[in-house]
Formats: sequence, C-alpha cells, structure tokens
Amino acid sequence: MKRSTIRRTERAVHDTAVRDAILDEALFCHVGFVVDGHPVVIPTIHARIGERLYLHGSGASSLLGATRKGTDVSVCVTILDGLVMAKSVFHHSMNYRSVVVFGRAERVTDPEEKLDALEAITNHVQANRWDEARQPTREELTQTVVVRVPLAESSTKMRTGPPVDDEADIDLDVRSGVVPMRVVRDPLV
Amino acid sequence: MKRSTIRRTERAVHDTAVRDAILDEALFCHVGFVVDGHPVVIPTIHARIGERLYLHGSGASSLLGATRKGTDVSVCVTILDGLVMAKSVFHHSMNYRSVVVFGRAERVTDPEEKLDALEAITNHVQANRWDEARQPTREELTQTVVVRVPLAESSTKMRTGPPVDDEADIDLDVRSGVVPMRVVRDPLV
Repeated sequence: MKRSTIRRTERAVHDTAVRDAILDEALFCHVGFVVDGHPVVIPTIHARIGERLYLHGSGASSLLGATRKGTDVSVCVTILDGLVMAKSVFHHSMNYRSVVVFGRAERVTDPEEKLDALEAITNHVQANRWDEARQPTREELTQTVVVRVPLAESSTKMRTGPPVDDEADIDLDVRSGVVPMRVVRDPLV
Repeated sequence: MKRSTIRRTERAVHDTAVRDAILDEALFCHVGFVVDGHPVVIPTIHARIGERLYLHGSGASSLLGATRKGTDVSVCVTILDGLVMAKSVFHHSMNYRSVVVFGRAERVTDPEEKLDALEAITNHVQANRWDEARQPTREELTQTVVVRVPLAESSTKMRTGPPVDDEADIDLDVRSGVVPMRVVRDPLV
C-alpha cells in the first residue's frame, strides 16, 4: 500500500464521554428499523438521559407503530465538521463525528419518565425551553409517543485532521486542505 | 381538535424536482439496511445522476459487504432549516426537508458508470473538484466500491413556516417563532 499507516485520521472511539457529547450536540437523528423485512430510515429528534436515548417524532408514525410491541432499531447521529480536499480524488474524505446505536426501542408508558424525556428533548433543541413554554396538558401527553432506546450497544467514529496524500502527489499543483463546516443558529424570527 | 387544520405546515411533496433539489443539496446521507434481521444505519456520501442515486463510503464496509449480491436499503437525507418555537411545548417542531429512498442497492461494476458516479460524488461535495484534483488510477478504481440505488420509490417531506399555536395560547407571554438554521462552509484551511 502506498498510503501511510502512521497517520490514522479515521478511527473508532471507545469513550462514552465522546459518545455522549456527539449525541448531545446533534439536533436530530436518523432511526432505522425493519418493516416486513425491509429497512426504513426516518429523521426524528432525540435526547439523552444518562444511558438512555429518547426519541420523539409526531411525523414518525411508522416507527411509532413498529414500537407498539418493541422493535429493534439503529439510531445514527452524524456531525459534519469539514470537507477534506486531498490532492487526489481518491483521498478525499469528510471530517465528522458519528454515533450509531443498536438496541430495542420501547414505548415509554410511565408518565414520569415520559415527562422527563419530553423535558430533555425540548431542552436539547433549545436550553431552558421547557420552562419558558407552556408545558403539556394531560391530553397532549396522551397524544405524545416517546420511545426509549438503551445506549448499551453503540459505535462511535470520527475523522479529524488534514488530508492524507500519497507521497507521489505532494508536489501536485492542486489546492488541498480542509473546508470547515459548521451549523449556524440565527436569531429567532 | 383544538388545532387548526387550515394551516398545514408539514406535508408530503410529490414533485421530483423538489426531491432532486434536496438530494443534491444534502452533503451526506444515512443508509439503512438489514443484517441478520437487524437494522443498521450508517452515514455515507452520495450523488444523484438522473433517476439513480450513487453511494460511496470507504468506511461503510458493512454496507459494501451487504451489497455484494445486492441488498434492500433505505437512504435518507435531511436538511434542517429551522427550529420551530411554539407557545406550547406540544407544538414545537422543526422546519426541514427530507427524502427517504427505498430500493435495491447494487454494486456498480461497469467501469464507465463507476467513473461517472465518482465524478458526480466528487463534484457534489465541491463543484469542479473532479477536474481540479488528480483523478483515480486504475488501481484506485479497483479499490473503490460504488453502489447504485434507483430513485423509483421515494418519499419527500417538508415542514415550512411559523409555529401553529392553539387559539388559547396565542396571548401567552412566551417568545415564539422560528430559529433559522444554516450550514456554513468556511474557507479552505
């Protein structure tokens, strides 16, 4: 192999603090589940409380239907940090942080756990929003479905740093480096 | 129901031009597939050529393994446009655009189609990058796996506009509106 093995830029991370920071920073996730043997992936919002991930999504009716009796899911969050522009097309990449969770999604039925989960989901999107806005009525709570996924099994990966170019490409007249990417929250309109 | 049915803010879109614009704007996607009956979701990069979606990801070894003989996938791209802050927690939402594709992923073996797909994927991330950087050698092409998914079956959804508040909440002293979200590309470092 021409490629240097010394500069490992993409790696698995086995630190739950890193996992938690990624889950907490990402504003939404993608949930995969199996319907009649076929995969389905939908976006929804989430929040973490300790070793549990909570999902909520009014639009996610197919997921919520599937979790009536509990269903296996894979939940993935990905944060894009940069576009890695190498000298060669082959070594182009992205700097990112991602967590993939594997587990059984179950509906939360305990009213207290449900309220805690909704508070976490609301404040995850905007700090302190739970206390600012009108909290749910009993009727609204009944209409709201919350799903719990344990964080016991997950895979955290990231890539950081500059492109890794082949020795032979270093002197090529190609602009290379990293294009940093960030998400901006503008003021409330 | 208290909630107004006149202001429909979340909706399915049956316009392939909208679908294509979302697929083209999103810089990466999440792919779901089934391994031994269990769902797996991973992030990877994509590009669209006409009615075909092409996927590539050196890190996506599990997907690439599954597609050796072709496998069903669900590919989802989601663009977050804003955080919808209603007067009540219950009506909080997000403005977004998403496409979920359902189809059979197959490896691209034709060298010309593979090259076209890689060019599209490279230029999708950064316009004209294919011509700027060193193009793949024969050996690099052999090492690269590209997967094709037809766009025949897909679901496009979006939410736009302000929060939908209940009549009874309108006069509550709660700051409400939309927090616009956008992704910023900084200059190459």
